[in-house]
Amino acid sequence: MRVMPTKGEKPKMREKDLKNSDEIRFPRSRKVYVETNGNVVNEGKHPLRVPFREIELSPSKRRDGSLEENPPVRVYDTSGPWTDPNVKCDVTTGLPPHRREWILSRGDVEEYEPRKLVPGFRRVTLRAKPGRCVTQMHYAKKGIITPEMEFVAIRENLGRQIAFEILQEQMGKERSSLFHQHKGESFGAQIPKFVTPEFVRQEVARGRAIIPANINHPESEPMIIGRNFLVKINANIGNSAVASSIEEEVEKMRWATLWGADTVMDLSTGKNIYETREWIIRNSPVPVGTVPIYEALEKVGGKPEELTWEIFRDTLIEQAEQGVDYFTIHAGVRLAYIPLTAKRMTGIVSRGGSIIAKWCLAHHQENFLYTHFREICEIMRTYDVAFSLGDGLRPGSIADANDEAQFAELETLGELTKIAWEMDCQVMIEGPGHIPMHLIKENVEKQIEICGEAPFYTLGPLTTDIAPGYDHITSAIGAAMIAWYGTAMLCYVTPKEHLGLPNKQDVKEGVIAYKIAAHAADLAKGHPGAQYHDNALSKARFEFRWEDQFNLSLDPHLAREYHDETLPAEGAKLAHFCSMCGPRFCSMKITQEVREYAMQKGISEEEALLKGMQEKAEEFVATGGEIYRE
Amino acid sequence: MRVMPTKGEKPKMREKDLKNSDEIRFPRSRKVYVETNGNVVNEGKHPLRVPFREIELSPSKRRDGSLEENPPVRVYDTSGPWTDPNVKCDVTTGLPPHRREWILSRGDVEEYEPRKLVPGFRRVTLRAKPGRCVTQMHYAKKGIITPEMEFVAIRENLGRQIAFEILQEQMGKERSSLFHQHKGESFGAQIPKFVTPEFVRQEVARGRAIIPANINHPESEPMIIGRNFLVKINANIGNSAVASSIEEEVEKMRWATLWGADTVMDLSTGKNIYETREWIIRNSPVPVGTVPIYEALEKVGGKPEELTWEIFRDTLIEQAEQGVDYFTIHAGVRLAYIPLTAKRMTGIVSRGGSIIAKWCLAHHQENFLYTHFREICEIMRTYDVAFSLGDGLRPGSIADANDEAQFAELETLGELTKIAWEMDCQVMIEGPGHIPMHLIKENVEKQIEICGEAPFYTLGPLTTDIAPGYDHITSAIGAAMIAWYGTAMLCYVTPKEHLGLPNKQDVKEGVIAYKIAAHAADLAKGHPGAQYHDNALSKARFEFRWEDQFNLSLDPHLAREYHDETLPAEGAKLAHFCSMCGPRFCSMKITQEVREYAMQKGISEEEALLKGMQEKAEEFVATGGEIYRE
Repeated sequence: MRVMPTKGEKPKMREKDLKNSDEIRFPRSRKVYVETNGNVVNEGKHPLRVPFREIELSPSKRRDGSLEENPPVRVYDTSGPWTDPNVKCDVTTGLPPHRREWILSRGDVEEYEPRKLVPGFRRVTLRAKPGRCVTQMHYAKKGIITPEMEFVAIRENLGRQIAFEILQEQMGKERSSLFHQHKGESFGAQIPKFVTPEFVRQEVARGRAIIPANINHPESEPMIIGRNFLVKINANIGNSAVASSIEEEVEKMRWATLWGADTVMDLSTGKNIYETREWIIRNSPVPVGTVPIYEALEKVGGKPEELTWEIFRDTLIEQAEQGVDYFTIHAGVRLAYIPLTAKRMTGIVSRGGSIIAKWCLAHHQENFLYTHFREICEIMRTYDVAFSLGDGLRPGSIADANDEAQFAELETLGELTKIAWEMDCQVMIEGPGHIPMHLIKENVEKQIEICGEAPFYTLGPLTTDIAPGYDHITSAIGAAMIAWYGTAMLCYVTPKEHLGLPNKQDVKEGVIAYKIAAHAADLAKGHPGAQYHDNALSKARFEFRWEDQFNLSLDPHLAREYHDETLPAEGAKLAHFCSMCGPRFCSMKITQEVREYAMQKGISEEEALLKGMQEKAEEFVATGGEIYRE
Repeated sequence: MRVMPTKGEKPKMREKDLKNSDEIRFPRSRKVYVETNGNVVNEGKHPLRVPFREIELSPSKRRDGSLEENPPVRVYDTSGPWTDPNVKCDVTTGLPPHRREWILSRGDVEEYEPRKLVPGFRRVTLRAKPGRCVTQMHYAKKGIITPEMEFVAIRENLGRQIAFEILQEQMGKERSSLFHQHKGESFGAQIPKFVTPEFVRQEVARGRAIIPANINHPESEPMIIGRNFLVKINANIGNSAVASSIEEEVEKMRWATLWGADTVMDLSTGKNIYETREWIIRNSPVPVGTVPIYEALEKVGGKPEELTWEIFRDTLIEQAEQGVDYFTIHAGVRLAYIPLTAKRMTGIVSRGGSIIAKWCLAHHQENFLYTHFREICEIMRTYDVAFSLGDGLRPGSIADANDEAQFAELETLGELTKIAWEMDCQVMIEGPGHIPMHLIKENVEKQIEICGEAPFYTLGPLTTDIAPGYDHITSAIGAAMIAWYGTAMLCYVTPKEHLGLPNKQDVKEGVIAYKIAAHAADLAKGHPGAQYHDNALSKARFEFRWEDQFNLSLDPHLAREYHDETLPAEGAKLAHFCSMCGPRFCSMKITQEVREYAMQKGISEEEALLKGMQEKAEEFVATGGEIYRE
């Protein structure tokens, strides 16, 4: 690697197309759907269309001029109908409610007049019929495979039944086992070679995975969060006190999901909080989470001590009616734990946690979220809103990691998980935050044990506090590790963390850093579909298929831009060398020469090398000048 | 966290001062020296001045108006005399040769006429007297504590004798043990509470650490590479075929070391390679490494098959005379291993490795670096150039990680390490490259076992191949982990890896990503000085000392810039809130209130909380409006 001349240093080039999600096109990618025609296993026999993005590749060129086709690479696609040129999307009417029919056909819901309505959107508000429960967990426990579960199974397999077999062929039986079903640090994660709808059902039934799918968010494309599935990431969005238009909020959601966010959390505050959320949900192809206490706090003028159970309850119901898919509920911040934070370096850093702590101190009463937990469960099961049990006492610095306060709260979250499960509510558990590397594993071990394997959903964690401005990196390190150990979903951190409000570029950098962390964990956990993507890119790199290398990357535009900074000519993207070693010598070519030699001789490569070394040596000398003919 | 409005999205702001190292000033930082007046332990009794950067902090303000001083934080400083306002530095004359006297006083070197000389620099060329060995390992084995060893000991302690005691006081005895001397994944790493010169000597004597310190590079400030010390990072620089002026090369070295590079490797090719290196070494306060085969290849017109042992040997001697501190030598690429790479996804990706492979195939002979290894050792011990035994067969993709070819080469590196040690040569071992997370640990385990604990020096590793353009992040994940497991030095990867030549911004991003990885590993390994830095920043954050938070970060300018994007007013940096939660509610305040309450009552905090809850509750309600008085 060399450093290029830097005369007249210009500011870092970035994509020019940061403006709008509509302007981003992934080159040579197309939307495809895997359909279940005639092969439907779900209760109700609903036919399914599961979306993917498929990246077309160029053929490999053999020296004899023949071509070897490279099958397109299918990747998980969170961007929804927005990126389907055949679907007309309009923010003012929302996405098509494709799950509506599945929900209605179960016969356990009723339509009713909601408490609030946003003018403009025509929608039906549903709830469970009296005495009924409409959660995915409930169906799963009864042995029912819902369309959501089948959808998820197809999605997790990337629509392919044979990823593992392809891997075996590519890498040999022995080596492919290194990359699948290996012994690892992942606690009990067992990534199946092929995810069946029945496997999904079992995982949901035992609470090891959740499918956040509010019956009032029929626009969403089902996804699953659990450690035996692909690792997911969440991006936080939401308007700030400074007014931003509702269209801008929808654009932020689209922007985050375009780059790969599996869920978004709407953390809006201030004016128009209800209306903003309505617009986001109606247009969101991914589950939407919220922290309802933020809205409740707005209702009491920002004074935590004036919060009441009734105000909170009404807020939950209003948001459930809108279609929020999961709620962060800080029910584990018990009065008795608050003193445990007094000696901390950085006290309580969760906003929700500190609201509750303030309320508890002001009233000297137990947290009302804890005392009313069963009533909250009743609401959750009426709409299928999943719990995201908040870690209000998570550490806010490396110094406070894994302390008494944090683990005391975790014990309570374990207790609450059991109650929620009794009532067939779906649950995931939130986790920190700030943890040095050597204390990360303990978090997963304890969470799995205490919370009965409910999915873990962590914020980072940051592995050091000394790099504000780079916390997407300090935390991507911790995120990759904790996901490998067994965390099911990662909440992203942007470069602005601790310093300011993320702009669009920050959101993109946060999402991509977390896609990297999640994917690195998928690889380490042995997901065959993940390895397949890496292998396709590595092969393209080795064969100097530059366009394919760009297009297979998480950010094709940036990869191309970086390449073109050094070698801008169009011809350079056909060149069999790169700017790192230059045209005169390239380290990747020698193996290619060895392979070509073997092909010409019609013998195996290894044989060629073991037996034909001398001959090869002579040939090299004889044709030496010709090898680097560029 | 919320997303700010993004109307008229502007390109990402970056520091305006990318132009020149001289323009970067770390705010409220000053150069300090720890001196050994009257307390010298080194052979020869040379007084030492060990440089640090000290960051001054503001006092904490208690509610009663009294101030609590925060002692300045001392950090490791790699930038050399260039950042000392009291030293006049001039690139045309080079840095002062402060080690010259130490070297001469040992009485084992002689001055002589070197093979080549660059006009302009007046310098003395030294070599060991006939039959003598001048390596730090040689002295260490003889029980001699050199000034270099004592310098290193002071430097590793950050000039402080009490970091661990401070930590105990800050965090309590029980919790501080969580962060030091904990059981971990680090294989046998034993970070002492206090590094003594004798400890340094022992580690160098047994080959577990090296001090790269060519007797012809007296300008360098000694540093140590070993897993019981702070993790180090290397930045690659060097001119490209496209001409860049020599001054620009020196500036790149200064730029990389300003941001924290512990060593630089000069990978120059093309014209003026010798002269460029001379300028870099004469001006470099850090050890300089090279891959001599690159220059040897230039001498034979870029044709690997025309390389000879004699040409290579002369290149080694010329570079040793100039003062190169370590050489990458690809002596482990044996003829028999080359066929093992034929079935790989990406063949041979090390440039040096493929040069040697090509030579071996062309001649059908064993690698001449292997067959002449003892002669190479003779050169190394004459100047104290350390070996960096190259991993020419390292994997170039996730698919090829930990394969037969890679580990076969490692066995040979272990064999060569023993030979080098017999001859008292210092050795480190290079490692990959591309490794999925679950296969990283095995690399360290095997390296430690096979190479007798010689320091490991790895490139990344990247933990996935799907993110070209972001490989500083894909690899910072692997780098942090492998350093925690026991790697002693990390070679950085920039965002341009695999795509193009890094510019100055890329170099900075690479160095900072790797400082993060190294520091995260230092924390996880239990280095008390590392934890001290994190705690200082966390405390500043909690107390809303914004300026201190910026100044303690790895990149104070960027941290401030990000903060100011959202809250630009100067007053905002005095505010007791931040843009994340806004003025109306801030999660960090509640613990502060709890503490203040305790102080007023004159009782311990915990007592205050346990006993005084009710009183506190009343007070909260009574003064509630007053608490958020901003």
